[in-house]
This record gives sequence, structure tokens and C-alpha cells, in this order.
Amino acid sequence: MGSEFSTKGAYVTGQEFNRDTNYIQDRIVADPENLDFVPAADPAKIGHPFAPAQIGAQLWPVEAGRYRLVAARACPWANRTLIVRRLLGLEDALSVGLPGPTHDVRSWTFDLDEGGKDPVLGTERLQENYFKRFADYPRGITVPAIVEIASGAVVTNDYPQITWDLSTQWKQFHREGAPDLVQADTLDESLPLIKRIFTEVNNGVYRAGFAGSQQAYDDAYDRLFTTLDYLEERLATRRFLMGDYISEADVRLFTTLVRFDPVYHGHFKANRNKLIDMPNLWGYARDLFQAPGFGDTIDFDQIKKHYYVVHEDINPTQIVPKGPDLGNWLEAPEREHLADNGPFLNGTAPGEVRAEERVAAGHNPLYPLA
Amino acid sequence: MGSEFSTKGAYVTGQEFNRDTNYIQDRIVADPENLDFVPAADPAKIGHPFAPAQIGAQLWPVEAGRYRLVAARACPWANRTLIVRRLLGLEDALSVGLPGPTHDVRSWTFDLDEGGKDPVLGTERLQENYFKRFADYPRGITVPAIVEIASGAVVTNDYPQITWDLSTQWKQFHREGAPDLVQADTLDESLPLIKRIFTEVNNGVYRAGFAGSQQAYDDAYDRLFTTLDYLEERLATRRFLMGDYISEADVRLFTTLVRFDPVYHGHFKANRNKLIDMPNLWGYARDLFQAPGFGDTIDFDQIKKHYYVVHEDINPTQIVPKGPDLGNWLEAPEREHLADNGPFLNGTAPGEVRAEERVAAGHNPLYPLA
Repeated sequence: MGSEFSTKGAYVTGQEFNRDTNYIQDRIVADPENLDFVPAADPAKIGHPFAPAQIGAQLWPVEAGRYRLVAARACPWANRTLIVRRLLGLEDALSVGLPGPTHDVRSWTFDLDEGGKDPVLGTERLQENYFKRFADYPRGITVPAIVEIASGAVVTNDYPQITWDLSTQWKQFHREGAPDLVQADTLDESLPLIKRIFTEVNNGVYRAGFAGSQQAYDDAYDRLFTTLDYLEERLATRRFLMGDYISEADVRLFTTLVRFDPVYHGHFKANRNKLIDMPNLWGYARDLFQAPGFGDTIDFDQIKKHYYVVHEDINPTQIVPKGPDLGNWLEAPEREHLADNGPFLNGTAPGEVRAEERVAAGHNPLYPLA
Repeated sequence: MGSEFSTKGAYVTGQEFNRDTNYIQDRIVADPENLDFVPAADPAKIGHPFAPAQIGAQLWPVEAGRYRLVAARACPWANRTLIVRRLLGLEDALSVGLPGPTHDVRSWTFDLDEGGKDPVLGTERLQENYFKRFADYPRGITVPAIVEIASGAVVTNDYPQITWDLSTQWKQFHREGAPDLVQADTLDESLPLIKRIFTEVNNGVYRAGFAGSQQAYDDAYDRLFTTLDYLEERLATRRFLMGDYISEADVRLFTTLVRFDPVYHGHFKANRNKLIDMPNLWGYARDLFQAPGFGDTIDFDQIKKHYYVVHEDINPTQIVPKGPDLGNWLEAPEREHLADNGPFLNGTAPGEVRAEERVAAGHNPLYPLA
């Protein structure tokens, strides 16, 4: 996500950091004429920080090859979509564009692509795609965004809805063996958990890092670690958040945990302890990291570069720390004994990452330099 | 030390951080007429970053009650003197003034004292005492400084020499059972070690934190952890750096280690790993912390406040992290099996801290809030 383009706005002395919650809330759905509003009918329950669909929000039909997902590897909110797309095997149906880790105050850019342009959209800056939708788009140019390729216009940047719809609306394009990440019979338990993970952890680290006063920071720190302690305890007896099977809740927690020691611990002062000091959460994070679809989406170099270079207001030198040592992500998780089945409900692990989507060697311990 | 008053100067793009090495190099010695130049004759060997005594440097006689040591608890260079004074039992001979943790661009201040004035020197700012010595003193107003009480003038702020002279020159005022921290028969081994600890660790963390470029930072990080790895290995078979007994080398390493996880890991990006991730160094640091004279000089609140508030250039929000959890400093070191004797060569541990010099409750796990 990119409401951190200009962190200047976060420095309102004495105030909490408040995430910009105005997104383009269109949806891409299986049947726009007969939208099944369950379970997505209550966005608040799925960690959606704002009210149900905006007035005027549109429904678009699911269609293979019509859209392009734009998702920077650096961004935790975009990272969710990369994981879910992999788990569900949507690579053929929904192509992906990958902006680089840093951006200027205006936009994420396709600076890693040849000629500095996305090879499918032909744009240099994601902002151009927002402007093709709304010529005077006034808010943050955020990822993930789904763009209609023909028009070049952003359809949605509504990140909590995007992964939910990939699971529930794009079913006809799921690979054989795609797991059920939504697990309808567990929603009474999973939706409040997902919401808590959003408010206290996913957004909680930002609340600490962008706090405008000592008091706001202290409060944010306490909220964050209260929920991490709860999750640490929850994971003592469950291999994954909902038990034996990986679900949407795990995707959402993972993207914050994987950034915790490399970024949030130091850069956002979320430093009561490191992830590696919480044995259940740390084993759980490694278990996911080593599962196909999770760790293979992670580019630690881009992650670190993004936060430390973009947030000049809290890191004016823009120097990127060399640490921490990340080889320990490959240590055995030793969590299999906590589950009888799994880890993919009704499914199998995804196959190899396609060559053009592979994380660069040296940016992730799964891909060592030759 | 306070060459970090204004960190602006540290930001010379592409440059290493270079410590200001111009100090007032007077010494206070047992017999100014017959100074024994061994082993202090070679300051380079004792981690002294500059040339032997300045032209014009003076010798002052040791005398009980004549001088006052000014040493902020926050500062690692001053912390050395607080530890050595305690270990040697110099409390009666050499009183201490304790500036608060933060200061402005001009000076450390006695803001914790009643009326904001040191009760013996009567000054508000340590700068006044520097000016009494040199009216136009142009360099940093640093601690530790030893002030002649009658004139109010700074005698020396030459921190590597100060602890050395407390051990070697103030012997007539040492308490009964004061340990030998200098251990003349080990100097061939200890002096190069002390020098390496200064350049690579004590100053190494500053070199990383104040690096003016990514390259300078990367180099500093590598140098720092190369030596920490060496020390980790050295301490696998030795209870203390020189074996069974605590020495000056331990004092110098301890003051950096105790600040490592609360400050240097995050604030200075010395983040390959935390101290607690290096089992020998961490056990060693706890062993010292729990020894009388070490941990009882530590004020973690002042330490954190100093760095995070004073260094606005690298922490513009001045928000002080709540973490890390510090209760683990009281865990058993389990290092006794590495030594047959000790830990104080020819001596005993110091007694209780006098009431007026006790660290505030809640600022150190040794002194919990009631």
C-alpha cells in the first residue's frame, strides 16, 4: 500500500497515525448480476477498515487476461495478493506487474522493468493508470491495484477485498488442487481474528512507527504486543491460525511477520522483542515461509529498501541496515506435530514459481547467490 | 562523551564518522615530579585514539576532596569512570556530579539536581566549567570531565587516561580489597585488546550510526561484527576477557554491550543480531551486570533518552522506544565454571551503592518499582 508516499502527513504532533481509508472500492466478481454478498457482505468483519461499498462503486466480471495485478514486492498489502495468486494458481488468468521498491512522492514506478515501463501496461508510473480511471485522482497511488489492460484504468485498489475476491470470485480459474483459503464454516471465528490482525498488527506496526507523539507511540506499542502475545499463545497448540489448514488469516499475518525483524523492529520501534524471540510465532512464520507460495514471494532486499529509503521523515539518512541475518528463515519449523492434516484444505501446494516471477538471487535465503 | 552534541557535523556525505580527538590531556597523578610513564606512556596501546600528551599538558597531584568527577550516566565513556570509581572505592576521595541524559547543542546540564545546579560546583552547565579553564574553549563539552572544585575549572576530559589513572595513580585512596584492573603482567596482551575494543566496538557503533553514506555504514557494520565475533569466540573459554579476573578491558567492553540492544541495535543500525543472540557475550555481559560496581551504575532510561532525544538527525521524531524488555539482564549468567578464581584480582567486590548515588527505581531491573 502506498499511503506512506509522503510520511510528512503522519507527523501531526500528539496524534495517532490514521491510515487513509478511501480506496477505489469496485470489485471483480464471478457474476455481477447475481453477486453473492456472503461472506463479503460485511467488510468490517474481514479487516476492512471502512464502511461497505462506496456509493457508485462498480462490479466488473471476472475474465482471464482482462486485468493486470500491480503489486510491489516491498509492500505488505500487495504481498498478500502475490501469495494468494500463487496459492490459487491464478498466474495464467491474472498477470502481474511489479513496481520497484522505492518511489517518489507521486507514485510507485515500474523502474525495474526494461525501459522503465510495465511491459503490458506500457506505463512508467502507476499514477498514470489511476489518472486513466479518474483524471484528478486525489489520493495515494497505492498497491495492490488491479488494472483493466485494454483501458489502462485502475479497477480497484481495495486490498482487503482483492484477496477475498480472488478466493471467492475467481474460482473458475483456480488451479486444480487450489486450497480453500476462506473456509466458510470457520468464518464466525476467522473474521473477528482477521479484523484484529488488521487493526492491531498489520496496521499496528504503522501506528507505532508513524506515531506523532511519545504517548501515541507508547499506546501503539502496547496494543501491538498485546495482540502478538495473544497470537503467540494461540499458536502454541495450532499449527496455523485456524488449526491444521492455511487460510486467509495466515496470509495476512505472515506479510507483517516476515517484515518484523528486518524492518518494523528497528524502523518502527516495535522493539519489545524480535519475532525470533517468540518461539511459536517464529516457528509458524518459518513454516509458512518454507511453504510454496509464501517465502517465494518475499524479496527482503526490496522490503528493506522500501521502508528505509521512502520514509525519509523517520530515517533521514536513507541508509539501509545490513542486518538482520536472515539465513535462519530456513531453519526447520518443527510444527508438523501440531496438525493431523494439512496444510492446504482440499488442496495441494502450488508448483514452481515461473521463471519471470522469481525473486532475485541473494534477496531471499531460498535463492542464494551462486 | 559528548562529541555527539551536534550530530550535524557527522553528516558529511560519503565520509566516515570521525570522532573529535582533541581533549584536555592533563593528568592527575600520584607524584607529578616523578611520573612513572609505564604503562601509560603509550596511550595508543590503551585505546587512546590520539598522540601522546599535548604540548603544554599539565600534571596535577592526586588529592582527596580536591576534584569532582562529572559523569553522565547516559554516556558510555563516562560510564567507565563510574564503574572504576565504584570498583576501587574512590567515593570518598573523588565526589561525583551527574548531568541529566539530554543536553542542548552547547552543553551537558545539571538538570537533575535541585535548582538545576550541581550542588558542589554550583554550575548549571558543564560548559561553564570548561570556560573557567579556557575562556574560549572551542570543542565539545564532553563527559567524563574532572573539575577542580576550588577553581571550578576542568582539569581533564581525557577519558581513556582517566580510568587508567584512577587505577594506577589514585592507589593511596583505593578501598581495602580494591581489585587490580590493570594487571601489569598481562599488558602485552591486554593493551592491544583494549585498543581493538575501542576502535572496532566502543567507537565502532558510532561509526555505523553516524555513517555519512551507505558504503561507510556497510564497512562500519562489517568491522563491528567481525570484532564481536572474535570476542564471542574469545569468551567461549574465558569467563572475562583476560581470564578469571575482571580488568579494565572488561569495563570498556561492558559499557558498549549494555547499550547494544537498547540503543545501538536499532538507533545505530548495528543490527546483524542483538547481544542476546550471541550466547557468550550475552552471558558475559550479564555476569558483569550482576557484579557490584557494574549493573548498579546503569540507568537504562537515561541511556535510551540520551541517544534517541539528542540525535535528532537520525531520530527526528525524538520518540524513545519502549523496548526492549530488559528483565533478562537478571537471568543467571552461568559462567562461573569458566574460572577457577576471581572475579576480582587481589580483591573483593565493592559494597553497597551509597543512597545518594543509587539509580532511580524502574530505570534498571536491579531496582524495580515498588
